[in-house]
Amino acid sequence: MANVAKKVSWSGRDRDDDDEDGRAGETTPLLNGSGPGAAGSGRQLTPSSFLRIGQLSNVDLNEDIHELETEVPRQRPNEIPHNEKLLSLKYESLDYDNSENQLFLEEERRINHAAFRTVEIKRWVICAMIGILTGLVACFIDIVVENLAGLKYRVVKDNIDKFTAKGGLSFSLLLWATLNASVVMVGSLIVAFIEPVAAGSGIPQIKCYLNGVKIPHVVRLKTLVIKVCGVILSVVGGLAVGKEGPMIHSGSVIAAGISQGRSTSLKRDFKIFEYFRRDTEKRDFVSAGAAAGVSAAFGAPVGGVLFSLEEGASFWNQFLTWRIFFASMISTFTLNSVLSVYHGNAWDLSSPGLINFGRFDSEKMGYTIQEIPIFIFMGVVGGILGALFNALNYWLTMFRIRYIHRPCLQVVEAMLVAAVTATVGFVMIYCSRDCQPIQGSSVAYPLQLFCADGEYNSMATAFFNTPEKSVVNLFHDPPGSYNPMTLGMFTLMYFFLACWTYGLTVSAGVFIPSLLIGAAWGRLFGISLSYLTKGSIWADPGKYALMGAAAQLGGIVRMTLSLTVIMMEATGNVTYGFPIMLVLMTAKIVGDYFVEGLYDMHIQLQSVPFLHWEAPVTSHSLTAREVMSTPVTCLRRIERVGTVVDILSDTSSNHNGFPVVESNPDTTQVAGLRGLILRSQLIVLLKHKVFVERANLSLVQRRLKLKDFRDAYPRFPPIQSIHVSQDERECMIDLSEFMNPSPYTVPQEASLPRVFKLFRALGLRHLVVVDNRNEVVGMVTRKDLARYRLGKEGLEELSLAQT
Amino acid sequence: MANVAKKVSWSGRDRDDDDEDGRAGETTPLLNGSGPGAAGSGRQLTPSSFLRIGQLSNVDLNEDIHELETEVPRQRPNEIPHNEKLLSLKYESLDYDNSENQLFLEEERRINHAAFRTVEIKRWVICAMIGILTGLVACFIDIVVENLAGLKYRVVKDNIDKFTAKGGLSFSLLLWATLNASVVMVGSLIVAFIEPVAAGSGIPQIKCYLNGVKIPHVVRLKTLVIKVCGVILSVVGGLAVGKEGPMIHSGSVIAAGISQGRSTSLKRDFKIFEYFRRDTEKRDFVSAGAAAGVSAAFGAPVGGVLFSLEEGASFWNQFLTWRIFFASMISTFTLNSVLSVYHGNAWDLSSPGLINFGRFDSEKMGYTIQEIPIFIFMGVVGGILGALFNALNYWLTMFRIRYIHRPCLQVVEAMLVAAVTATVGFVMIYCSRDCQPIQGSSVAYPLQLFCADGEYNSMATAFFNTPEKSVVNLFHDPPGSYNPMTLGMFTLMYFFLACWTYGLTVSAGVFIPSLLIGAAWGRLFGISLSYLTKGSIWADPGKYALMGAAAQLGGIVRMTLSLTVIMMEATGNVTYGFPIMLVLMTAKIVGDYFVEGLYDMHIQLQSVPFLHWEAPVTSHSLTAREVMSTPVTCLRRIERVGTVVDILSDTSSNHNGFPVVESNPDTTQVAGLRGLILRSQLIVLLKHKVFVERANLSLVQRRLKLKDFRDAYPRFPPIQSIHVSQDERECMIDLSEFMNPSPYTVPQEASLPRVFKLFRALGLRHLVVVDNRNEVVGMVTRKDLARYRLGKEGLEELSLAQT
Repeated sequence: MANVAKKVSWSGRDRDDDDEDGRAGETTPLLNGSGPGAAGSGRQLTPSSFLRIGQLSNVDLNEDIHELETEVPRQRPNEIPHNEKLLSLKYESLDYDNSENQLFLEEERRINHAAFRTVEIKRWVICAMIGILTGLVACFIDIVVENLAGLKYRVVKDNIDKFTAKGGLSFSLLLWATLNASVVMVGSLIVAFIEPVAAGSGIPQIKCYLNGVKIPHVVRLKTLVIKVCGVILSVVGGLAVGKEGPMIHSGSVIAAGISQGRSTSLKRDFKIFEYFRRDTEKRDFVSAGAAAGVSAAFGAPVGGVLFSLEEGASFWNQFLTWRIFFASMISTFTLNSVLSVYHGNAWDLSSPGLINFGRFDSEKMGYTIQEIPIFIFMGVVGGILGALFNALNYWLTMFRIRYIHRPCLQVVEAMLVAAVTATVGFVMIYCSRDCQPIQGSSVAYPLQLFCADGEYNSMATAFFNTPEKSVVNLFHDPPGSYNPMTLGMFTLMYFFLACWTYGLTVSAGVFIPSLLIGAAWGRLFGISLSYLTKGSIWADPGKYALMGAAAQLGGIVRMTLSLTVIMMEATGNVTYGFPIMLVLMTAKIVGDYFVEGLYDMHIQLQSVPFLHWEAPVTSHSLTAREVMSTPVTCLRRIERVGTVVDILSDTSSNHNGFPVVESNPDTTQVAGLRGLILRSQLIVLLKHKVFVERANLSLVQRRLKLKDFRDAYPRFPPIQSIHVSQDERECMIDLSEFMNPSPYTVPQEASLPRVFKLFRALGLRHLVVVDNRNEVVGMVTRKDLARYRLGKEGLEELSLAQT
Repeated sequence: MANVAKKVSWSGRDRDDDDEDGRAGETTPLLNGSGPGAAGSGRQLTPSSFLRIGQLSNVDLNEDIHELETEVPRQRPNEIPHNEKLLSLKYESLDYDNSENQLFLEEERRINHAAFRTVEIKRWVICAMIGILTGLVACFIDIVVENLAGLKYRVVKDNIDKFTAKGGLSFSLLLWATLNASVVMVGSLIVAFIEPVAAGSGIPQIKCYLNGVKIPHVVRLKTLVIKVCGVILSVVGGLAVGKEGPMIHSGSVIAAGISQGRSTSLKRDFKIFEYFRRDTEKRDFVSAGAAAGVSAAFGAPVGGVLFSLEEGASFWNQFLTWRIFFASMISTFTLNSVLSVYHGNAWDLSSPGLINFGRFDSEKMGYTIQEIPIFIFMGVVGGILGALFNALNYWLTMFRIRYIHRPCLQVVEAMLVAAVTATVGFVMIYCSRDCQPIQGSSVAYPLQLFCADGEYNSMATAFFNTPEKSVVNLFHDPPGSYNPMTLGMFTLMYFFLACWTYGLTVSAGVFIPSLLIGAAWGRLFGISLSYLTKGSIWADPGKYALMGAAAQLGGIVRMTLSLTVIMMEATGNVTYGFPIMLVLMTAKIVGDYFVEGLYDMHIQLQSVPFLHWEAPVTSHSLTAREVMSTPVTCLRRIERVGTVVDILSDTSSNHNGFPVVESNPDTTQVAGLRGLILRSQLIVLLKHKVFVERANLSLVQRRLKLKDFRDAYPRFPPIQSIHVSQDERECMIDLSEFMNPSPYTVPQEASLPRVFKLFRALGLRHLVVVDNRNEVVGMVTRKDLARYRLGKEGLEELSLAQT
């Protein structure tokens, strides 16, 4: 056994120290093991569990291997069974904790004060670049969408105008539907076949990334390109989607790319910003990118910062926050400047975001105290409608996961939705008899249809327009621009369309459709109120449209502080802050009573080991002993190369971090924890042949530099690609200077909330559990903590599976 | 030695494990030891250092003892030597880490899900109450100040009007100066003699509290009463101060009081909210209170949240943040409602804060891209002027610490400043020949003086008014309301007055005077610009006044994100966000080049062990081994009562946390760390006689409940007040169920930044340093980390002293 890595197992609890609280040997039974159909009912503390996990995981967990594998076309079954009470083992974690090994410390000690200032300045420069590029991408999307959508609407409008008189509007419908479906087809094709991770808004993926979960491909250049093209095509294709959500993903990709100073996809290394090539720094910049994206999307720099913090921050850092804010400000300013120039009024800076809610004049549209109960009621409605939306989307997503998993089926579904959207819009417009005088209105493509001359069809302002413009129209059109029937029908139809659309294999966001649904029923509500109160001056429908939009969006996405601030900034009006907050809070409380938020739901459906803010409140009964994975594969300070290779090649365990225990290779006596070394570090060591022959242990082994590790980051080669000869297998490798000599540890007695807090606050990837003699007894990783969840009937435990 | 607590000392480094990085026995030399005149030049790692610290600390560190002591009148020397490169040992830390002992875990495990929901609802109720009460206090201050100041200005104006015609204005000056001085005298008397901690704005104190330093008396009811009365009297007394800063302190006191459900000062215990009687929860509520204070002061709820986070948050928690935001919103809403009712227009909600910058209409007063370099230049000016202000105030504060430390002298100084302020104002008004037509202006107390009929003296709008009103006038008065000479003289005079005023023994804030100085020179700058560009339309002086105000305030206080948002919210205008951010950032960078921010400077002058966001960048060369305090006084799991009493009574060490090491009382063999127990817990145990006779160790000792600890919180009695008889001294006390069995630990090899990060992120008070066998080798507390600072010439180490 001396040449094989020891599996330190305490399942027999052969410790000689007495248990302080007198509960020695007690193993708290695990709580309601599993949901219906779960793959396994809770792990036991015996080695068999270790093996059982190993049996499940026949796919290698290493990201790069995983990548290789996805490129092989696989036979997909017709139906994929899926269960929500699962945690997938396929996701790796990011490491927000620096590995403070000798190399790192030597570098840090070499750097003097002035050099640190240079690093700091570089950080600011990168943030400025992130802001500028994100702003430019947003401009690009905006300008292209505006032109293409304008072209499409003009063509269709001309056609409708032509056929209204002479009959044969079914041809117009066909034209509209075909145009939409073909544009969406292209958008869906590129997503489904080139980069599936670019589907949707990307907000769940970025939430996961900031939370510390590595979603494959999520911050790649290819993803950005597909995302940008996809979102343009979706919006132009007339789907019930917005272009705002994807900006957050785009900003994040830009940030990840710039901060690394190279593009692996393009095989270009600019040899700059090498200091930032590690998870810690990269994640900080991605936060800034996400914030810049929100900022460009809604003209909400503070909202962007708060979004990043709400979703990502483990540890609030003033300097980091300030840099994030800087990137946000630059982003909205860039967008504002470029769009102002583009629109011809260079200096007025009136387009801070992709969507602007327009001016809400607090003097004309103020609210009074007696309206507050009304707003709260709207929050309740928003919460219920949001929950309904999410529940419908949940069933739809389950259906999609089971049956629509072939890319070609996904494309067909997207085309179908596009055609149906156009048809519904057309039928609604056709059937609507809501004619409004064209004079004084700001409608972009007035469809006359069967209205009298000088009038336009009011339903068309809602359907025959990009959703952003429809929202602004609903907020600001003077009272009387819509009749209640129009609004009611529109709400109903759009609700189902948007729900059907979210989750399609296209790049698109759900913010704007949510706002639009909410604005429609909010305006309807305002009109009813005005009618009930006999046209009181305070019942301005636009104000209620805004509150409805907030309520609906809050009910669907359940964001809190950041959404309040985003809405405040997008309306450019601080006085609405209080009612918006009340509405959002009510919507969240009511919605949470039924189902989860849309993003959290999708994260859960993908079985991501997502860590929430706090451990479940009732989890104090669990201790590290019950939570940890055990036995742990440990390495010795001076280890045989063959052993290392064997451990790394062992696809049944496939760990990413290994505690380093004791240094003397000639004794098997178990000794205290000395450090922690990562799979990626070992791979680099093997690749550079950093080892000495056993006979010459006194020889100094080859020295590596931090640069060698940074150059390999983040795509470390798989162990299979490294050839180690039989002679080399007998060499020894000294891990001392590469391991992190001071990994964080917890004693076995620590409660789950305590372990959780340490893990979450420091953004850890591995947490070693030790006993009273500092000997390794277990390891806590993200999945061990994410497994426990507060269900309807108390604490529940998710199963782990290789899905 | 068996019956005496062991002093585990590793100064001889008699460890048998080898040092991984091959630097065994190396003790990194400490960097530039001490500043001029420091009490000691860096501690050594020998026990003599421990003793030396002990010799210094002849005053007991326990807060309550300290309190008792302050009530004894002391002979104060005429001159107090003071050095800035000191850390005071008199401050205790707050513990943001729950002591997860058996009692706590049993309680948490007993509480079911529904009960946790009740706790959560209670938290929200408390936050609502904090918001409402903070808002009401702000209303009270506003209304009282408005009436009293109005009365004063009317009396003086009548007097001046009377004497302008018939001569003898010196009598008016005398009246004005006497009125001011007498009002200020009362304000200063109550602060100096009743509650000195109520002096100043309280922002440095709250920063310290949120940072985790317990400043004695800072959140007491008495402090609140003195603070509120003091600030009213200071503002009415015409000092160059604002009433906004103190709101932050007031909000914090309200929060601390409500959340504990009792008032120790009033000896009332309402038996509610007992769950929240610990540092962790209390500090969360104090964050909310501080945010509510900012929100009420500036009508800036988001700014308030960001202020709390910037100053206090260790660990960002979404639920906490959302509650803080709720408290802030309620606070500004309460203020708004009450003031609206008070001003007679009940429903318009137009007073969200104590100060409102008034409407900045972005259409009329927008900015263009070419103005941005001008704004940056203003930021530079603000930074330089701010640094000058801080440097002057630094010298003044040193002078005050040395010579003006008697309360009566402090009162006299305050009166002198009040009289001088009135005199300067009067002379300036008297000498000013800047007459403006009264028609169309909004000046509250127009002084005609020597102006023609229908005109008023423009200098008087700045001086003869509360500073808040002067600021708004400078922002919004139409171009031409002030002539440049007036503004220049005003800036100059007010700069020195404000600088002299800050640090007086009165309750008052520096926000408004800073804004006023900045607004004055900003407006002057705008006028000059308008003159240079021959009256271009874009050079609106009000806009430049705003930027100047931001620059000056930023240059003085150096707040970043939160200040940007506060300014944005106070102007009610989102478009100014970008230039304000640029200005603040420039001012901060320029100012930091010269001296620190005003608050940080005062925190440092009080030798508070304040922890910044990150460890000094160049501190990677230090490890826990060099940083920790050693030897550590440890206790055994079952310890003799006499030993415990002796340790607690030992005024030469006076530790607050004791590692608990090994359980067998009959052996002296050193064993691994088992837990950590706090002084306060030991005191409660001794008070309740929780021990058994040595002969009957098998007997079960009396059980305590968490309630016993909570009832004693936060003013635990001093050890001297607990009588332990000679027989009882021989009893044994079992610490197992009271100690925290899973304290956080670090190995000796961990670098200072790593230790710092753990300490700061988790808000720790004690961090045990262990070796490879989990044996205690040292202890890191706040002062050990705060000692290292980045000075001009690199890392420097502060001395510790009992000041």
